[in-house]
Amino acid sequence: MSSKELGITVKKDQDLSEWYTQVVTKAQLADYSSAKGFMVLMPYGYSIWEKIKEDFDKKIKAIGHKNAYFPLLIPERLLKTETEHFAGFTPEVFWVTHSGDTELAEKLAVRPTSETIIYESYSKWVKSWRDLPILINVWNSVVRAEITSTRPFLRTTEFLWQEGHTVHETEREAEEEVMTILGIYSQLVQDELAIPILVGKKTEREKFKGAVYTTTMEAMMPDGKALQMGTSHHLGQKFSIPFEIKYLGKDEKEHYGWTTSWGLSWRLIGAAILSHGDDRGLILPPRIAPTQVVVIPIFYKETDQKDISDEVRYLSSQLEQIGIRTLIDDRAQYTPGWKYHEWEMKGVPLRVEIGPKDIQAKQVTVVRRDTREKIAINRSDANDRISKILSEIQNHLFDRAKKSLDGLTATAADMQSFKKVLEEKGGFIKAFLSDDSCEEKIKIETGATVRVVPMKAAKKGKCVYCGADNSIEVYFARSY
Amino acid sequence: MSSKELGITVKKDQDLSEWYTQVVTKAQLADYSSAKGFMVLMPYGYSIWEKIKEDFDKKIKAIGHKNAYFPLLIPERLLKTETEHFAGFTPEVFWVTHSGDTELAEKLAVRPTSETIIYESYSKWVKSWRDLPILINVWNSVVRAEITSTRPFLRTTEFLWQEGHTVHETEREAEEEVMTILGIYSQLVQDELAIPILVGKKTEREKFKGAVYTTTMEAMMPDGKALQMGTSHHLGQKFSIPFEIKYLGKDEKEHYGWTTSWGLSWRLIGAAILSHGDDRGLILPPRIAPTQVVVIPIFYKETDQKDISDEVRYLSSQLEQIGIRTLIDDRAQYTPGWKYHEWEMKGVPLRVEIGPKDIQAKQVTVVRRDTREKIAINRSDANDRISKILSEIQNHLFDRAKKSLDGLTATAADMQSFKKVLEEKGGFIKAFLSDDSCEEKIKIETGATVRVVPMKAAKKGKCVYCGADNSIEVYFARSY
Repeated sequence: MSSKELGITVKKDQDLSEWYTQVVTKAQLADYSSAKGFMVLMPYGYSIWEKIKEDFDKKIKAIGHKNAYFPLLIPERLLKTETEHFAGFTPEVFWVTHSGDTELAEKLAVRPTSETIIYESYSKWVKSWRDLPILINVWNSVVRAEITSTRPFLRTTEFLWQEGHTVHETEREAEEEVMTILGIYSQLVQDELAIPILVGKKTEREKFKGAVYTTTMEAMMPDGKALQMGTSHHLGQKFSIPFEIKYLGKDEKEHYGWTTSWGLSWRLIGAAILSHGDDRGLILPPRIAPTQVVVIPIFYKETDQKDISDEVRYLSSQLEQIGIRTLIDDRAQYTPGWKYHEWEMKGVPLRVEIGPKDIQAKQVTVVRRDTREKIAINRSDANDRISKILSEIQNHLFDRAKKSLDGLTATAADMQSFKKVLEEKGGFIKAFLSDDSCEEKIKIETGATVRVVPMKAAKKGKCVYCGADNSIEVYFARSY
Repeated sequence: MSSKELGITVKKDQDLSEWYTQVVTKAQLADYSSAKGFMVLMPYGYSIWEKIKEDFDKKIKAIGHKNAYFPLLIPERLLKTETEHFAGFTPEVFWVTHSGDTELAEKLAVRPTSETIIYESYSKWVKSWRDLPILINVWNSVVRAEITSTRPFLRTTEFLWQEGHTVHETEREAEEEVMTILGIYSQLVQDELAIPILVGKKTEREKFKGAVYTTTMEAMMPDGKALQMGTSHHLGQKFSIPFEIKYLGKDEKEHYGWTTSWGLSWRLIGAAILSHGDDRGLILPPRIAPTQVVVIPIFYKETDQKDISDEVRYLSSQLEQIGIRTLIDDRAQYTPGWKYHEWEMKGVPLRVEIGPKDIQAKQVTVVRRDTREKIAINRSDANDRISKILSEIQNHLFDRAKKSLDGLTATAADMQSFKKVLEEKGGFIKAFLSDDSCEEKIKIETGATVRVVPMKAAKKGKCVYCGADNSIEVYFARSY
């Protein structure tokens, strides 16, 4: 294979779809599977998922949440308990009908989401106000039939995610939980993944099937299509009533609990690829990068080897000591140039090269993945400088993505300008909307849907579709 | 509910089965589910599983293994690729036949184990000797139909586990991997879970379907039944040939890789419950306990509260600082006595009580969960003493279980004594065995199977069944 084939063969801004597929496979993040619609999360992709898990897990545990595990297969009767929910999910459910050669008495659904199987347990566990709140999170995978073509991380029949399911004494507490989680989600996406987002509610049409309302965060990809990054739902008593999640209150009376659910998935990895990558491959934000710094020794002569190897090991151990995730690439069978390409493809934020000249000059040479800037830094303050550069990269990636988001946000007062923006560059279109019927017509005519209704009482104005006064401001976009 | 009902209502040595069920549910480790054969892993049980995962994950990563994720559903055609494997698993497979209302063109198996779906990927990933070894581990759940009744952790249709799948250049490397992992397994079980084991190989009859040979570790439960704690398989080229996992060697020729697979499951939690628990509930070995020390303030008068609360917080933060997992239970709505019962039920290794007398005497009172011994220790060396007591508990639990194992290991020279031992107390029976046909007859007549063939060339002697000379020494037992 030539090194050209090893690299990405298309430009990101010319064919985003093909570019994306090549990055995913050439950076060894994920692979297709012969099980149609399914994907394999390869070790490098999994190590990014582990960083995301670690970060989120720590944050929710710090405020009292605990992990648990619930069954993969859900009896049909349970899934049917909340009718709106069942109707919403049933077309995409995979059904188990046989065990060995024996037909099962009742079909079992491979979980598309776990509300029903979890609430059955909660109805047993919740008896008194003393049992509340229940704050449980699950790391698992769910399966939903995908009719359209597979896009690794973005559209797969099975995906890894977390689903949180909580029960509270009062509606106020449940609504607070919904917002607390949305806040942690936003922090994770913006501060760790360096992806700017819009935050708000979904419309009735776009909400989770079975929710009172759904809150969401939405990012904008470079091709002008929005990507939903995670949702947090207020379920009110819509599940607690049919599932009989009841508690004896301090007032000695029986009450139904108030529930929430919330989820985010490996889709975040897809968003990071699309947001930050360039023609050379992936670019990972340092905070989420499994390897933040790769150190590559450059040997010219046999006699240099010991000095350089010592220096490489010393620097790496110094960096590791201050918590920088560092990898030494001293594989003998590859040239430095090959290694540069490989780690650029894999998006490692910073490369350190150490050769004979560096040893002599008591310096190391670092190369930023985002700007490809080459910087010689004094050996003596390498730790400080490298920490600082990693922060700069993190901020730079966010700022660059924010500029792209701002450039892809427009306003439309009528359908003519709405359609014009949509055709020319896509992106978010801020517009006023009167009701569900105009929302549906816009979707049919343009393919754009309401992504976000801003949280604070939105401004009022004339509906972009029908011109009715007193319409609320929302953000439209086409989406993944 | 009376405090009697909250406690275990049967003696461990009188009705182990009922005792076990009560511990599992009353310590809130797991719960049954209306999906028959499935169980819910509750937060407390999950936190033990997290400790096991953390420990094993760190150990295998330190020697180069990486985690990944592979599809849940396996096309029938793939599962059929290795015939012995397919024949072995097909009776217990759950089949997905429909997506929504649509019948699938090909049935999909809910993974009973992932060899086939993983090897399909490996056949694409492995091209050159440079790609080897592949050392991948997966944390997931698998589903196998269970006909007999559900026993949480021990016999459930779905279980959480890890499955490792590796490919090597040479058979020697593959066999070394099998033994390396068996070593890590043994360490985990003996050093962390404090459960003594026998280690060895399985017979042809008992090996994993599709393996060249299976290595295993087997523990002995108090009722005289063996429990398989984890297996590590040498698969030779039995999968690499049908799946075409081939590499171009350093000799420029094509070779088939050598593969291994290995797994351990949440069953380890069941083993810990059975091995260490007593009539008051669970006893967790300190190294695996999510909470190692619970600190309980004891207030008599309002005026004591501040001093005691300060002391409780100070001690806890001191213990946390030296890495002891400590929980303060200062819930106002429960009495100290209630809390003692609860944490005893949950098996927390050490309880610390701090009351007014302790403050005055500059001491704290600690109570060991294993011996229930009450010890007053000087406030000034609380850290050292508590660390030391935790180690003592860890060792004591292992020693106690070892004594039980030794007491449940006997020798039989003929079938009469074999059956006598089996009926009287069960346990491991060391005996000589000639061949597969005697093995089968013993199984049919007694229900006992060969659990372990010792690793080192076993001693030779007369077969316990047919009397043939030159038979090898093995360990029989009835098992879970």
